[in-house]
Amino acid sequence: MWRKMKPLEVVGTNTKGSVSPSLLSPRMNPLTHLAGRRELAAFYQKTLLEDVMPFWLKHGMDAELDGIFTALDRDGSLLDTDKSIWFQGRAGWMFSTVYNTVAQDRAWFDAAGSCLAFLEKHGYATDGKLFFTVTREGKPLRMRRYAYSEAFAAMGHAAYAKASGDHHYVEAAVRDFSFYLRHSFEPGYMMPKVDSNTRPMVSIGALMIGIVTAQELRANLGHVDVAGRSATEWIDLFILDIQRLFFKPELEVLLETVAPDGSILDHLEGRILNPGHAIECAWFILHEGRMRGEKSYIDLGLRILDCMWKWGWDEEMGGLFYYRDVYGKPVQEYWQDMKFWWPHNEAIIATLLAYEVSGDAKYAAMHQQVHDWSFAHFPDAEHGEWYGYLHRDGSVAQKAKGNMFKGPFHLPRMLLYCGELLKESTIARA
Amino acid sequence: MWRKMKPLEVVGTNTKGSVSPSLLSPRMNPLTHLAGRRELAAFYQKTLLEDVMPFWLKHGMDAELDGIFTALDRDGSLLDTDKSIWFQGRAGWMFSTVYNTVAQDRAWFDAAGSCLAFLEKHGYATDGKLFFTVTREGKPLRMRRYAYSEAFAAMGHAAYAKASGDHHYVEAAVRDFSFYLRHSFEPGYMMPKVDSNTRPMVSIGALMIGIVTAQELRANLGHVDVAGRSATEWIDLFILDIQRLFFKPELEVLLETVAPDGSILDHLEGRILNPGHAIECAWFILHEGRMRGEKSYIDLGLRILDCMWKWGWDEEMGGLFYYRDVYGKPVQEYWQDMKFWWPHNEAIIATLLAYEVSGDAKYAAMHQQVHDWSFAHFPDAEHGEWYGYLHRDGSVAQKAKGNMFKGPFHLPRMLLYCGELLKESTIARA
Repeated sequence: MWRKMKPLEVVGTNTKGSVSPSLLSPRMNPLTHLAGRRELAAFYQKTLLEDVMPFWLKHGMDAELDGIFTALDRDGSLLDTDKSIWFQGRAGWMFSTVYNTVAQDRAWFDAAGSCLAFLEKHGYATDGKLFFTVTREGKPLRMRRYAYSEAFAAMGHAAYAKASGDHHYVEAAVRDFSFYLRHSFEPGYMMPKVDSNTRPMVSIGALMIGIVTAQELRANLGHVDVAGRSATEWIDLFILDIQRLFFKPELEVLLETVAPDGSILDHLEGRILNPGHAIECAWFILHEGRMRGEKSYIDLGLRILDCMWKWGWDEEMGGLFYYRDVYGKPVQEYWQDMKFWWPHNEAIIATLLAYEVSGDAKYAAMHQQVHDWSFAHFPDAEHGEWYGYLHRDGSVAQKAKGNMFKGPFHLPRMLLYCGELLKESTIARA
Repeated sequence: MWRKMKPLEVVGTNTKGSVSPSLLSPRMNPLTHLAGRRELAAFYQKTLLEDVMPFWLKHGMDAELDGIFTALDRDGSLLDTDKSIWFQGRAGWMFSTVYNTVAQDRAWFDAAGSCLAFLEKHGYATDGKLFFTVTREGKPLRMRRYAYSEAFAAMGHAAYAKASGDHHYVEAAVRDFSFYLRHSFEPGYMMPKVDSNTRPMVSIGALMIGIVTAQELRANLGHVDVAGRSATEWIDLFILDIQRLFFKPELEVLLETVAPDGSILDHLEGRILNPGHAIECAWFILHEGRMRGEKSYIDLGLRILDCMWKWGWDEEMGGLFYYRDVYGKPVQEYWQDMKFWWPHNEAIIATLLAYEVSGDAKYAAMHQQVHDWSFAHFPDAEHGEWYGYLHRDGSVAQKAKGNMFKGPFHLPRMLLYCGELLKESTIARA
């Protein structure tokens, strides 16, 4: 169905003129043969290192006061000097991880250091909680209820600890993750959005971010004990809760928000599905299953991917819808049929990982489908990076490259993860 | 340009088969001749009394526990039993006002009474502030920072005081408006979204809602003193602040958020324009100017309408954009180019009122343009009422008729206001 879309002309090309291999020869799935896998790995890595990361390094860094700006226009010019605290941690993690894995270039290390220096100096309120946004100079603007800034800071500090070898950042990572765990899961810390006496609810987001943060701490620091448990023990607890409370095999769905006993809240908020978010959850679990050879995790990850792909994929116009309703009713959020960049990044990772762990050709086909639609619609061949927000039909709704929610994270993480996974498994096969 | 849109077939027809007169004979502007004015007045009133208000009366009222449900699907079936506190006041006002002006039918009076009984029993927290949403039974769900529930409650109580003749509701209206004024304008009551030490900001919304609430108190209760000032004195203060702080003649723009001295905050939030909101503000001021024969208000209202129409009207696809940026930069809110129902309601009122007070044919043309585009795209000819959220091209993005933000307010207010204004001024001319 997606092949009926408009012809792929400039689209699918990064700023360096590299064209995605499956767009060049759409009849052959690149995952199923060695040359295709090598070309695809090279395409991901080239797009990461020569298009996406340089965009942020060139346009985002505050050379004078440290930290990263993420509110950048299409051509990289600055739309707002306010700084996102999420992104000091996320970009600190992203720059460090590129440095730690694919390119030991001083520029990535320094950029990570700049983000984390700004974070350390200006990110923390007096109680140790992190702000959501601050001014260019670091004066507080907004504080939010939840503790996602803290989880992203923990990831950034963990990856930079590995890059720098400085134990100070190990301590910072453990401290931030401890704060995150207490604030997110111990009763009484986070003010609920909805009165919890009237309607107690739990959301999947905190568990998912818990998994990926623990995975990053473990990957970068080795064994660490946080609040009495190892990273792996935390991950097992989070996956157990996701399966027990949010996954409904009888409805073939992973929910976003449920009652504390896992029952469905038959209200607008309780019925909402976020297929891209659920598919991101699927690959966190697949990653864990693959790494530890834990078959039950691989099975769970594949089942979540299978069903949420069906909920999310737009058979008429291609791409992934943003929200759906579990009973097929209208969703209150009016942008529900728009195509956002990040669900597509998560689905590219999840389908590739699913193919790698299962060898099932259907995942290779799904990967090609979402990869091709994404590279045909999201990249800006003139100025680099991806647009963030498309209309349902794939036309661009808003041309900026970043804001307080979009910066160097989902897209470069996908390029890095897929490139490395392909290189690693292709070497193993060759 | 808007005439290039898809042909007008079923659209433009309400559930009773009435077709908007200007859609029947598009070359003749109905405002410019007596028969056209009479037809248009009848069309507005018929749509109000036989389509829109019956939809809410039939599907929205909770016969068992009082109050109104607004989360209704396309056909009126219930999407969520949670109740909006905004809408207990707003619908209480709307039902009462229909009863007070065009149709002294017991059903409207009783519906208003039901909304206000629910509001009185379940709306108020212990400090007198109103909730944002509660359960069907009235248990608290969400409380928000600002005090718009209180302003809508004041309007509802004022109109019901007139309908019932019961002084209890006069007192309730004055009490709620006092609360609104203190919470919105006295320092220290409302927690700012953004740290006010770092970046003090003021928004136009509270002033606008202040104007319309004071206008409704005055219209329904006659002279009342609230917090030491008459309704008219409050209105004059609010209009003064709007002109002084938010209107920038040199940029031909009415801003949404400014620094306390009126200077532009060159950040995403400070640059944002909401043309529909500004056009609503224009008609509040035009209404005041017309009623009091205050030429400076008429001039100001016309100038705001003139410039914000230019910012808002989509020359390519018709209809009003939701958000723009004062410097033409991308807007962070990704749904910025969608066409929402309420800005179109406000623009239909504003252009009609502008024509009535000025006699300038350009406003009759603008009225026909926004009226025709709206009635060609928003009505649901099968189940009645209007869709709320269209894509930029006018296709329906979400088919529900209501939610916690959409219910019987903007659309029936437009139908009532325009019908009454036309009847009144046409009688005067005839």
